[in-house]
Amino acid sequence: MAKKYNVCILGATGMVGRQMIKVLDEQDFPVNRFLPLASHRTAGQKVVFKDREYVVEEAKPESFEGMEIGLFSAGAKVSKALAPEAVKRGCVVIDNTSQFRMDPNVPLVVPEVNPEAIKRHKGIIANPNCSTAQMVIALKPIYDAVGIERLVISTYQSVSGWGKEAVAEMYDQVKALIKDPKAKIEAKYIFKQIAFNVVPQIDVFVDNAYTKEEMKMVNETRKIFEDDSIKVTATCVRVPVAIGHAEAVNIKTKKKISLDKVRELLSKFPTVKVVDNPKRGEYPTPIDCEGIDDTLVGRIREDISQENGIEMWIVSDNLRRGAALNAVLIAKQLINN
Amino acid sequence: MAKKYNVCILGATGMVGRQMIKVLDEQDFPVNRFLPLASHRTAGQKVVFKDREYVVEEAKPESFEGMEIGLFSAGAKVSKALAPEAVKRGCVVIDNTSQFRMDPNVPLVVPEVNPEAIKRHKGIIANPNCSTAQMVIALKPIYDAVGIERLVISTYQSVSGWGKEAVAEMYDQVKALIKDPKAKIEAKYIFKQIAFNVVPQIDVFVDNAYTKEEMKMVNETRKIFEDDSIKVTATCVRVPVAIGHAEAVNIKTKKKISLDKVRELLSKFPTVKVVDNPKRGEYPTPIDCEGIDDTLVGRIREDISQENGIEMWIVSDNLRRGAALNAVLIAKQLINN
Repeated sequence: MAKKYNVCILGATGMVGRQMIKVLDEQDFPVNRFLPLASHRTAGQKVVFKDREYVVEEAKPESFEGMEIGLFSAGAKVSKALAPEAVKRGCVVIDNTSQFRMDPNVPLVVPEVNPEAIKRHKGIIANPNCSTAQMVIALKPIYDAVGIERLVISTYQSVSGWGKEAVAEMYDQVKALIKDPKAKIEAKYIFKQIAFNVVPQIDVFVDNAYTKEEMKMVNETRKIFEDDSIKVTATCVRVPVAIGHAEAVNIKTKKKISLDKVRELLSKFPTVKVVDNPKRGEYPTPIDCEGIDDTLVGRIREDISQENGIEMWIVSDNLRRGAALNAVLIAKQLINN
Repeated sequence: MAKKYNVCILGATGMVGRQMIKVLDEQDFPVNRFLPLASHRTAGQKVVFKDREYVVEEAKPESFEGMEIGLFSAGAKVSKALAPEAVKRGCVVIDNTSQFRMDPNVPLVVPEVNPEAIKRHKGIIANPNCSTAQMVIALKPIYDAVGIERLVISTYQSVSGWGKEAVAEMYDQVKALIKDPKAKIEAKYIFKQIAFNVVPQIDVFVDNAYTKEEMKMVNETRKIFEDDSIKVTATCVRVPVAIGHAEAVNIKTKKKISLDKVRELLSKFPTVKVVDNPKRGEYPTPIDCEGIDDTLVGRIREDISQENGIEMWIVSDNLRRGAALNAVLIAKQLINN
């Protein structure tokens, strides 16, 4: 009989944590013991895994005794404190936070893109940022075929990327403004009013006036492709959408590639779906991707402003592709290695 | 005493038309006779100009007898039919539709950018598309200082760019989804559900798989700068915002320019306001621009992915800057020539 694993989920009450539980089941991951963990604040809540109810326990160093795989999604600080404790106890950590992503000792993995990196892990494997994950999947077949020289990215990111409090904030703001268009809106989780607005700030600013989110796209893309020669710039923008990130990506390839070839390569690539028929008004939008595993790619066209240029529009469920699904696929790859 | 002009507004009951009436007053334009015109459908409605109520008349060729300046904003078809009739009767047409923009006999003008083009008019002067107008204003001082080689643009455009029916549609969809998250949404004016979604299509598709809106940005930018060597690509996206377009613009200049210089030039440029202090969380968002004349520029930073690269974020009230204000400023320039 195939081995089953003791799996814990840290941050089990969050939006990503709940998706992780769902995807573990959907992907039929061989789970022996299942342990949902969370901070003191939400411990005691209940979650359901494979039709059985579990009480979420407070995460402590001892929680990881006997655990073999830990999916972490409770924020960078929690990962910083508890990942070493888990590793010490023999639990491999698949971490969805930014804490270890750029650590040279930690592989940063999208299983469809760089599965081989998993083998180099020393106890921790990092999940990339959601906006990076969906992009590198759509770029991978192009990268392999003709190389990538430069990327200019603009994102349209949903509020769920900032957690369930941000989603609630958006709906509260929308309701207040529908009731009274002059309602005074105070932003708590997102930096500005997000209802009927867009906010060009995700995460904090760094010294070069980019945001951390933008620099994640730059640095994580290079790390995943193991290619520091790729030039990347990004503007990351929050939009009033609940779930699903969209990205306008302008690509300069190293060699010429035809659009037919791009479409063919993308169509064949696992977990990518081409939705691209402008004449029929077919292209993906965020509401089309909610709850599905595929990364949707449309608006594929030759960039009229440069040689070897391609424009594309990439849409994916940020909670799944960029987080829960990616983590579970890493776990599957890990146990198959 | 300074001369006063007989001014008619075609499309007086639309969102832009109403702003035109407001801006004519705000800008203290010397109006003698004021004549609001519209299609048969909305003729008979009332509008207020300088505290006086006017009944909107149905636009016919004869309506333009005795008129000296006509501000047109009733759609390309109406302009096609009636602009020649107005010109024939001695009325200079300032046209806000796409009908004549690329006509070599028609100047395409943003008064702060290429006022001299107005002098070449033969009866019709075109207003650029709203998304182009706000961008070229923010680019002009940079263009003059160091030249522009290439632009990669992603837009975040409000629904009012598609008219008041589109704004109503957005609010109706939002209300329906707040009441019932599973409500079936049918899009009529915007191509897909726009509530809690973003739609990467504005106007119809053309042969190269760009949309007309995207090609407007390409072609109008070149025409306004009278420089076909500028390379431009754009992805135009509708977002669930009522008023105010935002644009992430990646610029490659011909020569090096410092960020301090960019900020200085922009700060001095008329109708541009720099709102850019990331450390204090200051940058413009669409709700900040509603009802104001200035184009707001923030997120100014050196593009880390190329030599001579600048990233910026440009926000403006599309009904004013991109339409009503631009038209009235053209009219002011015209009577001063």
